[in-house]
Amino acid sequence: MIGRAAAQTGKGARDRMSVTRGDTERAARRIGGRIRRTPVFEAAPGLLFKMEFLQHSGSFKVRGAFNRVLSARERGEPTEHGVVAASGGNHGVAVAYVARALGVRAEIFVPEITSAVKVDGLRALGAEVTQTGAVYADALLASRKRVAETGALEVHAYDHPDVIAGQGTVGLELLEQTGGVDTVLVATGGGGLVSGIAAAVAGEAAVVAVEPERIPTFNHALAAGAPVDVPVSGIAADSLGATRLGEAAFEIAREQGVASVLVSDEAIARAREELWRDYRIAVEPAGATAFAALRCGAYRPREGERVAVVLCGANTDPSTLS
Amino acid sequence: MIGRAAAQTGKGARDRMSVTRGDTERAARRIGGRIRRTPVFEAAPGLLFKMEFLQHSGSFKVRGAFNRVLSARERGEPTEHGVVAASGGNHGVAVAYVARALGVRAEIFVPEITSAVKVDGLRALGAEVTQTGAVYADALLASRKRVAETGALEVHAYDHPDVIAGQGTVGLELLEQTGGVDTVLVATGGGGLVSGIAAAVAGEAAVVAVEPERIPTFNHALAAGAPVDVPVSGIAADSLGATRLGEAAFEIAREQGVASVLVSDEAIARAREELWRDYRIAVEPAGATAFAALRCGAYRPREGERVAVVLCGANTDPSTLS
Ligand SMILES: Cc1ncc(COP(=O)(O)O)c(C=O)c1O
Ligand SMILES: Cc1ncc(COP(=O)(O)O)c(C=O)c1O
Repeated sequence: MIGRAAAQTGKGARDRMSVTRGDTERAARRIGGRIRRTPVFEAAPGLLFKMEFLQHSGSFKVRGAFNRVLSARERGEPTEHGVVAASGGNHGVAVAYVARALGVRAEIFVPEITSAVKVDGLRALGAEVTQTGAVYADALLASRKRVAETGALEVHAYDHPDVIAGQGTVGLELLEQTGGVDTVLVATGGGGLVSGIAAAVAGEAAVVAVEPERIPTFNHALAAGAPVDVPVSGIAADSLGATRLGEAAFEIAREQGVASVLVSDEAIARAREELWRDYRIAVEPAGATAFAALRCGAYRPREGERVAVVLCGANTDPSTLS
Repeated sequence: MIGRAAAQTGKGARDRMSVTRGDTERAARRIGGRIRRTPVFEAAPGLLFKMEFLQHSGSFKVRGAFNRVLSARERGEPTEHGVVAASGGNHGVAVAYVARALGVRAEIFVPEITSAVKVDGLRALGAEVTQTGAVYADALLASRKRVAETGALEVHAYDHPDVIAGQGTVGLELLEQTGGVDTVLVATGGGGLVSGIAAAVAGEAAVVAVEPERIPTFNHALAAGAPVDVPVSGIAADSLGATRLGEAAFEIAREQGVASVLVSDEAIARAREELWRDYRIAVEPAGATAFAALRCGAYRPREGERVAVVLCGANTDPSTLS
């Protein structure tokens, strides 16, 4: 599939896992008219917030989902059987949004624990929702069975080069909007966002993956030399709770020298409160995770360093901020 | 006082009430290093949000307050006796913020109905708070007595040319950041913000003052040919609840042909909910008032018109959004 994409873009054969800046640039052209170009806010001298929580559906996830479906169409893959995704969180909402925008059916598989509010939200976007199994892995399995039966297009939450290239458009915009930064801090779960951004800014900025101590997918993958399962818990688990980093994400992040930093749940909660108190920005815990690394000192910029923090999601109950 | 300011800036004598684009440009240079340059977000094609709720203290009010105090200093007026303001709302918080930043004492007069939370918030910023009288007018009177006794600098919430010029810097930024718009929609109470913006964008964009039906200060001033008292009530009264438009604001707004539009409290509430639902922007009712004019059809842009909406404040309890 990627071989065909590469051939179509005239770049010849290449590693199945690789995503290049060129891929993110093509993604940007492909999805440009359909996503919001979220602003960059210089919150303090040298501290730049990429305000990606303003994106359609409340997170960056629509970028990857649009790029996945539109790339498949360009390659002539059928999308008339609809799209399928497994996620009761931001990815599921994004896929439902994208399917509606493109006029295709969406079927979203979520585990039985998913709250009625979330299921209703997905249905309100026009998606069919199937609740099945105790945990995410069960829902994913059921979704893949459906894909095999129906020929619908699977939109993975992070482990697909088209998804990664779509998320990477955040990094391209950041470079254009700022005229360059030294470092980009990115919350990391399955690794789609951080690896896409790393591909996009390769050679122009350093990228730091920030994870909750309680979900160290990238941190443990670096230590093990390959993605490994990690325990998942804590306040950001609903968005950053992938059990292991994606293979493609790992290849790219390692190749680009992405650094790893861990933050405590307490630091995330404080950073989230501070974003509200000092900036009137209301994000979810995952959306405050990258900022937490700065505030708790897990990442310490040197004098004069220009640091961009991706504020990546705000699917949150605002009452938890008062 | 203004005569002296004009002489110092080499513009000679002029009408006491007038504020020119030049005044807003000087204000921008004066306060530039102390305020946040808030971003502009193209929420949809031709719909631009000026994200001024991201400003220090949660509203644009610090712009006018900084310009008032720094202009007074430039003219050699004493500020060592501190600054005085009457307001339990955004203006009071802004003056407390500005005083702390400039290292001067702030005394804020608020009526007795002001909530303990607001009083505590002002004190946390280092201000002295005097609670006195049943309504705002009583607090204002007491504040003026204190000014007369102590020689402190009065920072009026809207009816002063330096305050107006400071608020106008919002309009200058908007022009620079967008490369031009057709129309700017601005929530209006005492009229400092709308008249400052009108001065800043004079000849380059139309300005529309948006007010709650239940606080029509500008609307009634236009009808009467001069500012008149209006009844004050409704969901935006804590921020837009000036009893009458300022004299200076009226002169400027009339001269610049500012249009008047009214919106219902229901439209304001809906616009505020929509900003959260569709954009994850959490503002207070006053901050959603300008957007309400678009959403309820009180202001209808023509095909292709580029409209900027000033989202001017977010001092709100986020739990009211869930
Ligand atoms: C708000 C938010 N931030 C960050 C992430 C992490 O993205 P990734 O799984 O691509 O690392 C997610 C994933 O759902 C998310 O929803
Ligand atoms: C959030 C907000 N918007 C708008 C206004 C109106 O400003 P003005 O009184 O200058 O018209 C105020 C005034 O306090 C405010 O706090």
